[in-house]
Amino acid sequence: MRHLGPAFGPDITFLGVPRLDLGDPSQDAGVVILGAPFDGGTSYRAGARFGPSALRQACYMPHNGTRRSLALGVDALTELRVHDAGDLPCYSGEIEQSIQLIERSVRMTASSGAIPVVLGGDHTIALADMRGIAAHHGFGRIGMLHFDAHPDTGGEERGGPLYGHGKPMRQLIESGAVRGDRFIQFGLRGYWPGPETLRWMAERGMRSYEMSEIGARGLGACLTEAFGLAMDDCDGVFLSVDIDVVDPGHAPGTGTPEPGGLTARELLDAVRRAAYELPVVGLEVVEVAPPYDHADITAILGSRVVLEALSGIARRRLDTAEGRWDPAVPLLQRDLNR
Amino acid sequence: MRHLGPAFGPDITFLGVPRLDLGDPSQDAGVVILGAPFDGGTSYRAGARFGPSALRQACYMPHNGTRRSLALGVDALTELRVHDAGDLPCYSGEIEQSIQLIERSVRMTASSGAIPVVLGGDHTIALADMRGIAAHHGFGRIGMLHFDAHPDTGGEERGGPLYGHGKPMRQLIESGAVRGDRFIQFGLRGYWPGPETLRWMAERGMRSYEMSEIGARGLGACLTEAFGLAMDDCDGVFLSVDIDVVDPGHAPGTGTPEPGGLTARELLDAVRRAAYELPVVGLEVVEVAPPYDHADITAILGSRVVLEALSGIARRRLDTAEGRWDPAVPLLQRDLNR
Amino acid sequence: MRHLGPAFGPDITFLGVPRLDLGDPSQDAGVVILGAPFDGGTSYRAGARFGPSALRQACYMPHNGTRRSLALGVDALTELRVHDAGDLPCYSGEIEQSIQLIERSVRMTASSGAIPVVLGGDHTIALADMRGIAAHHGFGRIGMLHFDAHPDTGGEERGGPLYGHGKPMRQLIESGAVRGDRFIQFGLRGYWPGPETLRWMAERGMRSYEMSEIGARGLGACLTEAFGLAMDDCDGVFLSVDIDVVDPGHAPGTGTPEPGGLTARELLDAVRRAAYELPVVGLEVVEVAPPYDHADITAILGSRVVLEALSGIARRRLDTAEGRWDPAVPLLQRDLNR
Amino acid sequence: MRHLGPAFGPDITFLGVPRLDLGDPSQDAGVVILGAPFDGGTSYRAGARFGPSALRQACYMPHNGTRRSLALGVDALTELRVHDAGDLPCYSGEIEQSIQLIERSVRMTASSGAIPVVLGGDHTIALADMRGIAAHHGFGRIGMLHFDAHPDTGGEERGGPLYGHGKPMRQLIESGAVRGDRFIQFGLRGYWPGPETLRWMAERGMRSYEMSEIGARGLGACLTEAFGLAMDDCDGVFLSVDIDVVDPGHAPGTGTPEPGGLTARELLDAVRRAAYELPVVGLEVVEVAPPYDHADITAILGSRVVLEALSGIARRRLDTAEGRWDPAVPLLQRDLNR
Amino acid sequence: MRHLGPAFGPDITFLGVPRLDLGDPSQDAGVVILGAPFDGGTSYRAGARFGPSALRQACYMPHNGTRRSLALGVDALTELRVHDAGDLPCYSGEIEQSIQLIERSVRMTASSGAIPVVLGGDHTIALADMRGIAAHHGFGRIGMLHFDAHPDTGGEERGGPLYGHGKPMRQLIESGAVRGDRFIQFGLRGYWPGPETLRWMAERGMRSYEMSEIGARGLGACLTEAFGLAMDDCDGVFLSVDIDVVDPGHAPGTGTPEPGGLTARELLDAVRRAAYELPVVGLEVVEVAPPYDHADITAILGSRVVLEALSGIARRRLDTAEGRWDPAVPLLQRDLNR
Amino acid sequence: MRHLGPAFGPDITFLGVPRLDLGDPSQDAGVVILGAPFDGGTSYRAGARFGPSALRQACYMPHNGTRRSLALGVDALTELRVHDAGDLPCYSGEIEQSIQLIERSVRMTASSGAIPVVLGGDHTIALADMRGIAAHHGFGRIGMLHFDAHPDTGGEERGGPLYGHGKPMRQLIESGAVRGDRFIQFGLRGYWPGPETLRWMAERGMRSYEMSEIGARGLGACLTEAFGLAMDDCDGVFLSVDIDVVDPGHAPGTGTPEPGGLTARELLDAVRRAAYELPVVGLEVVEVAPPYDHADITAILGSRVVLEALSGIARRRLDTAEGRWDPAVPLLQRDLNR
Repeated sequence: MRHLGPAFGPDITFLGVPRLDLGDPSQDAGVVILGAPFDGGTSYRAGARFGPSALRQACYMPHNGTRRSLALGVDALTELRVHDAGDLPCYSGEIEQSIQLIERSVRMTASSGAIPVVLGGDHTIALADMRGIAAHHGFGRIGMLHFDAHPDTGGEERGGPLYGHGKPMRQLIESGAVRGDRFIQFGLRGYWPGPETLRWMAERGMRSYEMSEIGARGLGACLTEAFGLAMDDCDGVFLSVDIDVVDPGHAPGTGTPEPGGLTARELLDAVRRAAYELPVVGLEVVEVAPPYDHADITAILGSRVVLEALSGIARRRLDTAEGRWDPAVPLLQRDLNR
Repeated sequence: MRHLGPAFGPDITFLGVPRLDLGDPSQDAGVVILGAPFDGGTSYRAGARFGPSALRQACYMPHNGTRRSLALGVDALTELRVHDAGDLPCYSGEIEQSIQLIERSVRMTASSGAIPVVLGGDHTIALADMRGIAAHHGFGRIGMLHFDAHPDTGGEERGGPLYGHGKPMRQLIESGAVRGDRFIQFGLRGYWPGPETLRWMAERGMRSYEMSEIGARGLGACLTEAFGLAMDDCDGVFLSVDIDVVDPGHAPGTGTPEPGGLTARELLDAVRRAAYELPVVGLEVVEVAPPYDHADITAILGSRVVLEALSGIARRRLDTAEGRWDPAVPLLQRDLNR
Repeated sequence: MRHLGPAFGPDITFLGVPRLDLGDPSQDAGVVILGAPFDGGTSYRAGARFGPSALRQACYMPHNGTRRSLALGVDALTELRVHDAGDLPCYSGEIEQSIQLIERSVRMTASSGAIPVVLGGDHTIALADMRGIAAHHGFGRIGMLHFDAHPDTGGEERGGPLYGHGKPMRQLIESGAVRGDRFIQFGLRGYWPGPETLRWMAERGMRSYEMSEIGARGLGACLTEAFGLAMDDCDGVFLSVDIDVVDPGHAPGTGTPEPGGLTARELLDAVRRAAYELPVVGLEVVEVAPPYDHADITAILGSRVVLEALSGIARRRLDTAEGRWDPAVPLLQRDLNR
Repeated sequence: MRHLGPAFGPDITFLGVPRLDLGDPSQDAGVVILGAPFDGGTSYRAGARFGPSALRQACYMPHNGTRRSLALGVDALTELRVHDAGDLPCYSGEIEQSIQLIERSVRMTASSGAIPVVLGGDHTIALADMRGIAAHHGFGRIGMLHFDAHPDTGGEERGGPLYGHGKPMRQLIESGAVRGDRFIQFGLRGYWPGPETLRWMAERGMRSYEMSEIGARGLGACLTEAFGLAMDDCDGVFLSVDIDVVDPGHAPGTGTPEPGGLTARELLDAVRRAAYELPVVGLEVVEVAPPYDHADITAILGSRVVLEALSGIARRRLDTAEGRWDPAVPLLQRDLNR
Repeated sequence: MRHLGPAFGPDITFLGVPRLDLGDPSQDAGVVILGAPFDGGTSYRAGARFGPSALRQACYMPHNGTRRSLALGVDALTELRVHDAGDLPCYSGEIEQSIQLIERSVRMTASSGAIPVVLGGDHTIALADMRGIAAHHGFGRIGMLHFDAHPDTGGEERGGPLYGHGKPMRQLIESGAVRGDRFIQFGLRGYWPGPETLRWMAERGMRSYEMSEIGARGLGACLTEAFGLAMDDCDGVFLSVDIDVVDPGHAPGTGTPEPGGLTARELLDAVRRAAYELPVVGLEVVEVAPPYDHADITAILGSRVVLEALSGIARRRLDTAEGRWDPAVPLLQRDLNR
Repeated sequence: MRHLGPAFGPDITFLGVPRLDLGDPSQDAGVVILGAPFDGGTSYRAGARFGPSALRQACYMPHNGTRRSLALGVDALTELRVHDAGDLPCYSGEIEQSIQLIERSVRMTASSGAIPVVLGGDHTIALADMRGIAAHHGFGRIGMLHFDAHPDTGGEERGGPLYGHGKPMRQLIESGAVRGDRFIQFGLRGYWPGPETLRWMAERGMRSYEMSEIGARGLGACLTEAFGLAMDDCDGVFLSVDIDVVDPGHAPGTGTPEPGGLTARELLDAVRRAAYELPVVGLEVVEVAPPYDHADITAILGSRVVLEALSGIARRRLDTAEGRWDPAVPLLQRDLNR
């Protein structure tokens, strides 16, 4: 599979990292960016097809393929040898073909030894992303950390499309790609789904942190608890970040905004911590819908989610038991030579 | 009074709940939505006339008259038999007639045994809403929980219009509709009003939680204290939610935005808790001004305020002393069969 | 087929006209509005899925099912017994199923004796709309008047999706639904398609009025010429209006805006004239994409295109050879009792 | 009556012209700007209350009280001694009081010998503006040139508010302030009003140029014809410019946008020509609604309407029969020393 | 001078044309795109620094380095071997250095035999662009066709900055780079400059078509006249297109919008015609200011101005006296094999 | 130096405070507002040139020169005799001249005994502001409290402009105007600068509170610690507030938005507390960029930052050891007669 052209607009890479021909064995990429400009699975507002393009260029700094994290003191883009394979040729009207193509590409990436980072696109692609991961790492061997306002476990209702952004998590668990009891959700709220679906979720042993629980117990405590669950008898975790987990005030550019979410800061902290504390084997950032964005703030946030995750991964690899990152240490006293 | 047509745009109901002919005794509504598309009392930005229309349709889910709360496990729209009576024929240029019409409609609704939920419109309508409530429940018998950046107790200054969104609370207290010492305000901040008005407020025994107090003492503690005050020797509470209590970042679509407010999450939590812990006899959500909104985030927030309040009311009715809702319980372990 | 629920948002009808259960023979509709909230065929910006909802409610007047044309002195909504069948349950990810469903619905409508008016959705639906028309009126019996910045006759290139908004016109001509030499296009411009496609178009005898020809010869003269062509040995015409035929200044809310188009006034005049002078058997208004609109100006324009077409049809039916509408007659001297 | 403070925002004057205390006889103003920040008469979108503030400051050049017209070679602001009296203290909820106040202020201005220029506000104020003019110049002595998408002659329907922006022209004619047969309208279009109102208009002898007539006969010819009509046995004309006469593409910031209008250029040319060829005794620019504007283009257009009118008036005073302004003369050959 | 990196955002080329190292003699470019991301000379709204980036990517078609003009039947990007040298490293705070750098780059480009196309940036750069052109082609040997709402001939006033977007044309003429009597302006209007500057312009023999003259005489006639003037004893023309020559309705994204301008269609027609009829030696498109744009319509328009000019140049080279492009010929009868 | 005219738009003062002729000794201003409408130092989005104009008028209350703080019970505008000297005549293309002019004006203001409050403008002006302060108060005698997402200590890289908004803090420390170990930064985050710069910062003894430290330790504790540091052997502090310290959700209208910042409430609380607890000798509010703002929420926030700082200063002067402001005291029990 060759370097993939862009679906829309100019042929750019994520903040200027090198291009990659997907499947070229001579390239030694540690992380591969894949664009999935697909929004044919949205139940309401489309626009996430422009997510990959927006996420790649939403930054005020030079697009030179480097981004050293101030907090973590590491430039993950170079440290992890991040490459960008371009956009997968998804057509939003062809949902099944798109899912298959994405799944194949993610599996191929994982098999090459690289961590796939998929820029959505709507959340339908989680089905493809995680199936691709499981195909390589083994079914049921990877836990899932899912940040979202919605559980995306729909599907028992009659009628409606076969695939879509409201049901990939059910399909993942039913297929065995992910164990239900290693599927952790953060940020649920609002008015969906109904009791039938919730019962299904409970029966599979899912662990869903709804916002009122997060409010009552604290996000930090919930994360700590969840990290343990996700890694119990698993070999790694996949991070699935639906930008609508964040409150619409901080992330207006999304398809199904639900008030009362995390702040942008809480999401960035949580993603950084997860990536630093857990062995992350893949990441997707989905549902960034530029037509509904303002001043690019949602796209920039999505871009930062990618960078925080990568920086956490990179820092994790560098740190030792004695020399670990501690946010309570003042910035200018953190060991800059690490 | 017949079913009221829409003031603007199509003739729709709140998220698809059944229509109601106001005053038709054969209808058995537990909650009645009333639209008050009036913004003739705004001192700055108008636009709240489109609040009812926006609040009725700002939702990405099917408009099928059901909304089961994920947190509370109850579908208040059906549980409480919520109906929508349409828009009251207010003209923004005719402020006195509008207030009288709204007051009459609220009283008629309350007298029918239903809980009135008024979708504003600007905050001028609080005068009508609460007077209508008091006319039925008795003057001074209902406490007021008022979420707002501004106390809306103006009126001592000379000149200016007789009515408006800056003065209904004074007029309510002066008329005896609400006791000053059962009038609780949350979220005040900024640069209004002046000492004369504050002295008047203090003399009436009002309890106004300014944001620096909320910051210093914590919102939870303030709410607990306030709930006790509001119900002392009262038979119920009226919730008045001016969306500008929320920070403009989360609620830009409003007429007089004042930075430094609650987050959307804090408001939703507070409203849910109030509705669950106190006997709510009415609700108004005001000052949602769609022309200044972005991606409908303010309208969706306002819609969620209505739903959280209704869900809290419904949950309160279902719960018993032993079986009470506890946000610290994980979502999928909450009793779903309640 | 029952009354179709709305795809998105509240269940409304076009400016308040009566609802229709599609296929209920007891209803005597002269015109049937069909919503096709589908944008899975867009090659660039999506959002036209919200076109039907926006077109139905973009009007500042009461949504009471009447709209008397000032210019033509006729209320087409009542005169033509316009009904609205709601939205067809299209899913943007399922392009083939969507096309089939729309085609079936249009044919059923035409067979009932009513004129179908399809609110798009992206221009992919032209394939369904016109095939449905031809299935009833006979293949090759209906001429096509196509207003668009793009000919939408793509398809010879390899790769890419099978269906989409860039190719329906080719598929219509190849299938014989429309004769190539009765296919008239207005408003083409820009940088697409290439010579291969143009040659194909020329070989089919298409007549495409590119903007520089319209500029050189005048729109009026071109229309007169075209009207003759379209009706030569045909029984009627189908009007296909892609809102992007209008300059982006007047119609920003569309998916593939191409500068240098008609003014809004020119389009309204042309549509009115076509509907008045020719036997119109169907209409589609497509590519109104609300996320890119401002102050609803594109949606209102699309709504007016529908109304001008319907008003022209109604006026045509009322006028006699002696008493015909003449725009040069002052408004208040036009015969108001017609 | 003192200098009037601003209704909203800072206390500024139109492009920096001198302030005026309304009624101070010592001031020698030739033109007086009056702000009428009132939108309580709008039937749909409010926001015109910010029209005066936007019209005063929508310009990229220094706000120094001078604006020399490039086309006409005259600085009307100084030539005509334009002063700004500030905003009249209108409250949008108090429609009757507002009308009375505006009428009184316009009459007082006219009586002082100055030309009143009223910055709206919604079109309700035409009732006040023209009545104030007639009170000074004599009932029926001034013709009216009315640019608008709507005739604003409503009022026969039952119910609804007593005053509003849809009915001032009827009230003006019924009161005798303006003769029906000296009331000329340009730019009507769309779907309002109905036959009853049109019949009333015809009976009063009104002359309404609907857009299809303007299209068929040409704007220039219509203007020439109209100018003769308006001045027949009258002493002057009042220009009433509703910005919605312009197509929404050029003027999105308005309350009831109707597609198919004049271009901005056509309006500016028409206003300039009217002011140059006819004895203008007053002007109003209404329905500029900043909340719906984009990049201030509507406000700037409204500001230019004022300036073109004033420049035309000033040029008219300077020109002689032999030395008249001729647009066909190249700019740099026009007599610059006039 | 190497390939120049991008000033802002990703490193892209104009619609995907090949990159160019400025000054590399081995490259055989016929046209060179130069980005001048500079807006330090704006007197009002900045933002034109993002013009180059927006102009390069504002297109819904594949960014594949080809754009075949539908009207002219030629793909200028390949026909003319268009290359993109990237953005010149201008800093908006360093106006003098920026002008020098741009001038040097334009001269170098012209000297290489290529036609420079400069993407602004504010109009200050005209000084650099045309001086660079004159440095190669000879002072006074190239006529200037300047489309703009403003003459940009300021400079006699005291104070203010030395350089800026209001004065380059004066500096060009004073320096002798362009002869005053070969300097043709189209589209002037509004309220600037004053008589002193106009007198200066008249004395230099400039020919400035103000909008009222264009209205009175017709754009076509004015263009024909102007083309003759510009080429009288000159060897070529430079096209300077300030996007604000277009009405703000069609081009809101600019710094100093002046209502009453050309339509987008008129500008595209004029540019195409100029490029087809005259020997164009350079082009600049300036004052596209993305922060004030909506749905990218101004950027797309600017992109089309570049393409129309290039297509006209390419068509001119291909046509012979017998076989010339004629817009009155129907599109599908134009010779497609040329 | 006379009263300075406005750079853009009308000649207004901050919320209506009196004007001031800079340097007129007869005026007894306690605080002087200076506008620095300069954005020539921005590395990405410009627009902050309109910051002063926006900050002066972004308020829904009467612009009458008074603003009594609800929290602090003091009207700082009158209490501190705040005057507005207008805009300094900066041109964004002339960066060095602009810096010199601003520095001179700040020094002159400080020397007059007044506290300068500079409304930016981009952060380049910090160099001028603090140098002007130091020139009066003594080099190294004033500590700096710097709220920002970025340290603005760049400058070691080669190339690039000499001055700009990314480097003033380095230049201030290098010049000795501020001691590095009295330079306190709050809110840093993201991906800039690199290790070389951080090492330079550490070597100068700077104290930079990065967001992850603030999250881990709490903002209150960090502020307390920092206040002690800043005042150690210093005579006062200068507050430098870059609005981008706030999360883009609350402050979208800025040039280089970085997600994960403070909430608006946190910034207002921090500024109020700093001004109340420390001897503030000057303030700047920078990087408010209106073109990227929505519904003016960023401008209003910036305006409130100024007011909170001034209110804190005023309250500090009024309070005694026994009678100090305590936010935990309920609003209506705070001593209103202070």
